[in-house]
Amino acid sequence: MKKSIGKKTILYPTPVLVIGTYDSARRANVMTASWGGICCSNPPCVAVSLRKATYSYGNIVERQAFTVNIPSEAYLGKADYFGIVSGRNEDKFAVSGLTPVKGDFVDAPYIKEFPLVLECKVIHTIEIGLHTQFIGEIIDVKVEESVMSESGLPDIEMVKPALFVPESRDYYGIGKHLGKAFSLGKPV
Amino acid sequence: MKKSIGKKTILYPTPVLVIGTYDSARRANVMTASWGGICCSNPPCVAVSLRKATYSYGNIVERQAFTVNIPSEAYLGKADYFGIVSGRNEDKFAVSGLTPVKGDFVDAPYIKEFPLVLECKVIHTIEIGLHTQFIGEIIDVKVEESVMSESGLPDIEMVKPALFVPESRDYYGIGKHLGKAFSLGKPV
Repeated sequence: MKKSIGKKTILYPTPVLVIGTYDSARRANVMTASWGGICCSNPPCVAVSLRKATYSYGNIVERQAFTVNIPSEAYLGKADYFGIVSGRNEDKFAVSGLTPVKGDFVDAPYIKEFPLVLECKVIHTIEIGLHTQFIGEIIDVKVEESVMSESGLPDIEMVKPALFVPESRDYYGIGKHLGKAFSLGKPV
Repeated sequence: MKKSIGKKTILYPTPVLVIGTYDSARRANVMTASWGGICCSNPPCVAVSLRKATYSYGNIVERQAFTVNIPSEAYLGKADYFGIVSGRNEDKFAVSGLTPVKGDFVDAPYIKEFPLVLECKVIHTIEIGLHTQFIGEIIDVKVEESVMSESGLPDIEMVKPALFVPESRDYYGIGKHLGKAFSLGKPV
């Protein structure tokens, strides 16, 4: 039996995305967001939604670029910190001890220590309500060689990303392998 | 050391979203998508991206409504099947044995057996490229009572959702609890 719980932003899983930007003084900033996901295969695009009140919002509007940095479990505490304080008041790279690196293709910094990084150029900006959605074309994906499989792709079991649970505000890790997509449910 | 692997749609985790729609003959259809996520807190909105070639695309354009159904691990095979065949050629509800239920608030069906369901009304349609993004306002969230915690919210450990790994096309389950958000990284 189903119970209605009304208008809520619940979806499982949502990601833990650390968004990298430069401010007008070219200071690197990062913030954590869970409202986002891949939104197009060609051109490859990722969507991230930020509140206008965030420091990163103004940075993206000005630079039209951002990075998406995926923390491993080991960096989850840093990622959580990036979602608590504002870059308007604090140099989050300095406090966290992590290292900003200028993107090779876009005007935004990525986090050297994180295993998986997307460099993105804004191609659409959609005003939705409290959040503004930025659609970024993925210009490059960067993978730490230590988490790369023989196929040349990142291995999710080595990346060890986290997921965020809306409303209850919990973080979880990745569990066991459940099967291959486009195969598990193939009619026989 | 990071290695560039080019323009790819890689993000961890991406969700397994089963999208429910009615066609012009009012036949219920479902398809599986992993390009999507929450995109606004107020109004609460979810974004899902579909290719124009899908049967569901035309249904959403016509009805301006869809549901998002989250499969538990037990239903992952059915969800995978929904992503392999087209509703243009096959009645996926009949083949899968699952039950379509008319949404209470929108002109779209949800899956009775799935633990978590969102009823959505389209408020924006964004042409990106191969995929079109539909932004749906979440009009209602429905939770199977058996996966509801005492707080009245769904419990992710009981819902047991799956996640999709782009490129390698694997499914994974949810792992262990890693901590509380907005707390784990709080400066002391």
